[in-house]
Amino acid sequence: MLKLPASIEKLINEFSKLPSIGSKTATRLTLYLLKKSDLDLSILSESIANLKKDVLYCSVCHNMTDTDPCSVCGDSSRDRSIICVVEESLDAAALDATGVYKGVFHVLGGVLNPLEGIGPDKLTIDSLIKRLEQNGITEVILATNPSLEGETTAMHIQKQLTPFKVKVTRLARGLPIGGDLEYADEITITRALQGRN
Amino acid sequence: MLKLPASIEKLINEFSKLPSIGSKTATRLTLYLLKKSDLDLSILSESIANLKKDVLYCSVCHNMTDTDPCSVCGDSSRDRSIICVVEESLDAAALDATGVYKGVFHVLGGVLNPLEGIGPDKLTIDSLIKRLEQNGITEVILATNPSLEGETTAMHIQKQLTPFKVKVTRLARGLPIGGDLEYADEITITRALQGRN
Repeated sequence: MLKLPASIEKLINEFSKLPSIGSKTATRLTLYLLKKSDLDLSILSESIANLKKDVLYCSVCHNMTDTDPCSVCGDSSRDRSIICVVEESLDAAALDATGVYKGVFHVLGGVLNPLEGIGPDKLTIDSLIKRLEQNGITEVILATNPSLEGETTAMHIQKQLTPFKVKVTRLARGLPIGGDLEYADEITITRALQGRN
Repeated sequence: MLKLPASIEKLINEFSKLPSIGSKTATRLTLYLLKKSDLDLSILSESIANLKKDVLYCSVCHNMTDTDPCSVCGDSSRDRSIICVVEESLDAAALDATGVYKGVFHVLGGVLNPLEGIGPDKLTIDSLIKRLEQNGITEVILATNPSLEGETTAMHIQKQLTPFKVKVTRLARGLPIGGDLEYADEITITRALQGRN
């Protein structure tokens, strides 16, 4: 039997564990890296080793950041009366990249998922309530993903917010720009009809 | 502007350089790794750092190996009268995994590619000729890939082998098992017709 070097088998195996990477892709990536210089390999290797080293979480909005408070919470030009609640830091980054949203964020750190043991205490909901107890917040946008867990989480938070006099909104649902009616799923079309304007 | 921590941006950037990984997949992989333990991260990081450390190249067939000679060249039960010439070690591994091939291999280390400056001297063709100068080799299978470069490389080697009294063969071309005639390309169908048996 032909045996590949153990270090190659090991890396193929490690890559295969990553999401959306099967054994063929893992093999291709490993073969690609074998042809790279030692310097290139050490840059990738150290990027992975150092990934979490300098990552802080903003004490205000729980966003991943290099500095505390984060670049949004520390920016006096942002509108602190609107809080956009998202699941993960990258969701906040995606919303912020549009340049349209000028408010601040609140990162939940996930969604409610009873099957995986993720209850309200595992998310940063208490911290959101504390932010609302301070005056001056007029609107909370619940921008969780349009998945079952995302909707459930948004409904749970909405209930918690009823004691406060704030406007609670959700992102609009409908057809994505560039999307084709023919290929849209029924729920999206239903929501697009309900929300017509 | 919301700024993600530099270590995260860096890893997304490094992953994006890998083949078949775009910026969306790079982001997904990075987000996945952020949720992994420090131990998991260090295992992946070290697998990459150590990838080339213990990799030797077999002095007989140039296969990647942990030991020299490699597990195939060092196995006395293999038929040393047949040499299968492949582009890369992983091609040899794929052929060997079938269990049908009992001969030995010769790894070229690539294919002729004048545009990228890869001439015959960059491949292990001289070493193959030296193996043939020893007696006892009856057949050489040219198992380069059915690409333009692979075919050109096979033709070049075939010319070099004319002085030797060895049978030179190529792998059969035709429809892959499980493949559908309807979806096969014209060249494959032409080859399948020519090689009908």
